[in-house]
Amino acid sequence: MALGLGAGLDHAVFGLLGLGASSRHRPAPTAAQGAVPFYGAHQAGIATPTQDHLCLAAFDLTTDAVGELRLLLQQWTAAAEAITTGKLYTPMPQQEDQVPEDPGEALELGPARLTVTFGIGPGAFERTGLASRKPAELRSLPPFPGDDLESARSGGDLCVQACADDPQVAFHAVHLLARVASGAAVPRWSQIGFGRTSSTSTSQKTPRNLMGFKDGTANIRTEESDAMNRFVWVKRGDGPAWIAGGTYLIVRRIRMLFDVWDTTTLEGQERVFGRYKASGAPLGEASEYDPIDLHATRNGEPVIPANAHIRLASPQYNAGQRILRRGYSYSEGTEAGTGDIDAGLFFIAFQRSPSRQFIPIQRRLAAEDALNHATVHTSSAIFVCPPGVAPGGFIGEGLFQ
Amino acid sequence: MALGLGAGLDHAVFGLLGLGASSRHRPAPTAAQGAVPFYGAHQAGIATPTQDHLCLAAFDLTTDAVGELRLLLQQWTAAAEAITTGKLYTPMPQQEDQVPEDPGEALELGPARLTVTFGIGPGAFERTGLASRKPAELRSLPPFPGDDLESARSGGDLCVQACADDPQVAFHAVHLLARVASGAAVPRWSQIGFGRTSSTSTSQKTPRNLMGFKDGTANIRTEESDAMNRFVWVKRGDGPAWIAGGTYLIVRRIRMLFDVWDTTTLEGQERVFGRYKASGAPLGEASEYDPIDLHATRNGEPVIPANAHIRLASPQYNAGQRILRRGYSYSEGTEAGTGDIDAGLFFIAFQRSPSRQFIPIQRRLAAEDALNHATVHTSSAIFVCPPGVAPGGFIGEGLFQ
Repeated sequence: MALGLGAGLDHAVFGLLGLGASSRHRPAPTAAQGAVPFYGAHQAGIATPTQDHLCLAAFDLTTDAVGELRLLLQQWTAAAEAITTGKLYTPMPQQEDQVPEDPGEALELGPARLTVTFGIGPGAFERTGLASRKPAELRSLPPFPGDDLESARSGGDLCVQACADDPQVAFHAVHLLARVASGAAVPRWSQIGFGRTSSTSTSQKTPRNLMGFKDGTANIRTEESDAMNRFVWVKRGDGPAWIAGGTYLIVRRIRMLFDVWDTTTLEGQERVFGRYKASGAPLGEASEYDPIDLHATRNGEPVIPANAHIRLASPQYNAGQRILRRGYSYSEGTEAGTGDIDAGLFFIAFQRSPSRQFIPIQRRLAAEDALNHATVHTSSAIFVCPPGVAPGGFIGEGLFQ
Repeated sequence: MALGLGAGLDHAVFGLLGLGASSRHRPAPTAAQGAVPFYGAHQAGIATPTQDHLCLAAFDLTTDAVGELRLLLQQWTAAAEAITTGKLYTPMPQQEDQVPEDPGEALELGPARLTVTFGIGPGAFERTGLASRKPAELRSLPPFPGDDLESARSGGDLCVQACADDPQVAFHAVHLLARVASGAAVPRWSQIGFGRTSSTSTSQKTPRNLMGFKDGTANIRTEESDAMNRFVWVKRGDGPAWIAGGTYLIVRRIRMLFDVWDTTTLEGQERVFGRYKASGAPLGEASEYDPIDLHATRNGEPVIPANAHIRLASPQYNAGQRILRRGYSYSEGTEAGTGDIDAGLFFIAFQRSPSRQFIPIQRRLAAEDALNHATVHTSSAIFVCPPGVAPGGFIGEGLFQ
């Protein structure tokens, strides 16, 4: 009782005050003290308001047996169900001579709004004899101009995206699932991220990326159910029936070249994004959410430059298409010699059709975006996320029916 | 007024309830809405209750000129003073053709209890002709058995430890200071960390490390002023006068070998640490804070094994010496081929005398600690942290007098 009262008070007080900066550290408690339901029509972690921390891992299958893939997805489902409610995967052993199945570092941390979202990569289908069930849209992304991809950080047969408001809870999810996968799959690469780089809910303020800009103001909000249905969730008829209610996950590790960016003038930076740095307003406008007028001119020149990021990424320039961005900032060491910090944006996007959404948008951006002089894409992967499941089911079950 | 009331309520409610897991995300608001004072007899970030996030960078000097080192420390002091109160280093330019000095990604995030702690490494003294001012204790650490150090992640002429409750605020501090250093010093390596791995305040619950154990229960609490004076702060007479009130910072990146650890029995894990996994109590005891009885036996065998971590690290085994641990967990990618996640403990310790504290303790641990079969040290560095300063002064000013 006392606990419920305390959490309720806190939520009410901060909700009423609309404290943006504070609320970043004070996520509103949800049902079951911070638990996000694992079961549902769609997997959690897509329409869930973005949590503060990411740990994502791609796995390579080490088996060709379809039965082992099925078993792995069943075990992963059971593990995700347990830990998203703040429980251990299996209880601590009563016998001291047993090996704990759950490594235990999230004990007592609570659910922390943990979501675990699973994806299946193109290679998993061929490998396990399921090529006939593979969606046509699930193809490795084409090369884009300027890509400098590291193969060891790209691709993968399976993907686990763990998001939580506590970084140790997110890490634990991937750690545990890697352990559960042992014998069937092995981590290929992994990435932690902090500081969500876009809002996915009307309750969230637009954050700044590591270039100091508000980006993603025009992102889909998951409360926009029409947009979610049109641009994110795969429909019956879009592909094989087993992925209806699912979506496609595309990740791109986008390193920021701070030696270039940090020596660019304020005007130069603002012309790259097409927004003012301080307010986030589109150039020529007063407030962040003012409509973007791509036709406005001043002295015969477009107010928002022809190669500005918000122009080229806007639906008007992309046949009306939008994607759901759910990325994080990352920082991972320093380049020997140059001293350049390897940091930037770990881009994550969900969409209904890569061929109509991410690929043409990224083709345009890769060719023209002014941002390209200060960024480089160093990893890339695509996965199909099966729909959600009901209790008793398992993620991806339709693939085996 | 409304804001003050809200923060106060939140603090009061959570303080009264003693919510450990929640308080991890809900740091108690301090003066000036989360600002930790930069000025004082000692540098902040040492006796400060450990924040949730770390970004630490070591720098190499690119100049031999003592005047440039002095200027850099003055500029770093000014920058740290500004950002620890939540301000930009310098205001956003009024002229659009100017380059922003502050990259700006921490705008509107508030101070978030940011502390910036500066250290000077052994090489900086010789390089700038200040060898005669170098403390005798400031020597590169000796090799220890089992070390597998990466040179590119070790050492450095200067160090910046940024800690905050918001990871983007900590990142921004290092990003900004790297930019300010341009022309005088360049980042050599950097490391982000999440999830403090020990308590440094009686107000903090003992966290779990990524092996799932409560470690650091016996750490110095900064409220223990006798222990801080005896074991952490350098005294007049310990070395050159300019470091009195300072301390020595030692960092070690300790990778955990999860393939070994996660397949060890519960009893085996508990015998390695000398504590029960669930409760954190010393073996043979009931509660985490029960005294450690190193003499207890059962069936003629010591209850806490001869090579248990808590035995070998205990003051009784180390001539009464203690150190202040202030480390973080880290996770940074995956080893190609094996799929082993590179994660573990980024160990940070402050002490008055490396030759009487860290070095002999680590010699004993490196030779005998049962934990060594599941860990490997991959980086190492030592720095002297000058004392704190008053307004108008700068960090390290005594070095130039």
